[in-house]
Amino acid sequence: MLKLYYAPGTCAMAAHIALEEAGADYEGIVLDFSKKQQQSPEFLAINSKARVPVLVSHAGALTETPAILAYIAQTYPDAQLAPLNNPFEFARVQAFNNYLSSTVHVAHAHKLRGHRWADEPSSLDDMNRKVPENMSALMQMIEDTMFEGPWVMGETYSICDPYLYTIARWLKSDRVEVAKFPKIQVHMARVEARPAVKAILPHH
Amino acid sequence: MLKLYYAPGTCAMAAHIALEEAGADYEGIVLDFSKKQQQSPEFLAINSKARVPVLVSHAGALTETPAILAYIAQTYPDAQLAPLNNPFEFARVQAFNNYLSSTVHVAHAHKLRGHRWADEPSSLDDMNRKVPENMSALMQMIEDTMFEGPWVMGETYSICDPYLYTIARWLKSDRVEVAKFPKIQVHMARVEARPAVKAILPHH
Repeated sequence: MLKLYYAPGTCAMAAHIALEEAGADYEGIVLDFSKKQQQSPEFLAINSKARVPVLVSHAGALTETPAILAYIAQTYPDAQLAPLNNPFEFARVQAFNNYLSSTVHVAHAHKLRGHRWADEPSSLDDMNRKVPENMSALMQMIEDTMFEGPWVMGETYSICDPYLYTIARWLKSDRVEVAKFPKIQVHMARVEARPAVKAILPHH
Repeated sequence: MLKLYYAPGTCAMAAHIALEEAGADYEGIVLDFSKKQQQSPEFLAINSKARVPVLVSHAGALTETPAILAYIAQTYPDAQLAPLNNPFEFARVQAFNNYLSSTVHVAHAHKLRGHRWADEPSSLDDMNRKVPENMSALMQMIEDTMFEGPWVMGETYSICDPYLYTIARWLKSDRVEVAKFPKIQVHMARVEARPAVKAILPHH
């Protein structure tokens, strides 16, 4: 059975949703970040990066949300969570998810994780101040140039949708009005109405 | 014919190498960042993110290095650049490349691109000062826990190798001694000895 290590409110929610969408047989294992459980020797033995999500299968442990999402799509093909037989369309899905991980999530992380990249309190305040501007600009880019509708990639739900939803949930705490992005706002409600999301929301 | 938009010294080198390794029929189109050619209306019409690499095929434009590398591996299977028939091993390749894009490249970017995340000159100086510490820690993590040897994923060369090589080339300007990481140092020389790299090095 698969095991998903996650923490509430983190990007691990995307993998959690995808496992539900896939109908996977999995066990969710919650880490309490307030108790720094991601720094425990037991967890570091699973993921030396001390981050979630981690998906453990019989073959070993996988990290990084875009890779985990693609793995779930590939190993549960009946769920049709990605265009597996079209390398170009599959790459577009991967490109969108990579944009979320390497640009959008990173912009958000400068609110509370600025200490990763700078030391002075004034720098951390500066980074935090800029988060609403950056997250707004990136969401506008998604709204205007990437989002096809009604799902991210068009008519078909894919592993892009739970990931965008997961990050869009951070906008309020990032001091960004999601209502400025009507397509993304409607998308959030559509994702939230899915049984897979209803099943895992109480854990997040 | 494929078209690769790139700029010397950028992460686009990884895709450039992979196209050579694949034996792809492609045209390289160089952008001059000193002339802000990535901001031109012509290029923004291809990639609204104003970044390289972009790989254009008959189907359209692809962005984001991990997605482009996987696309090259999938569309040139004879080159055996990724474990295409093993979703778990393929996901491990993707996870490594995602780590490079969302963590290592991002750490490097705080040297010259700090203005993406903060406004004050003192913050940008602070970020720049921290780059050697961060890049050293991340390379140590790769050296100790990810790099299998002699290639990133073990006995078989993959799309992880040109990407690690591309980023390792930045270490000197990031004020990090690559000699501190003997596996990565040997790996750089091994990658550089490949005909595909010799073919594209004059352009970078």
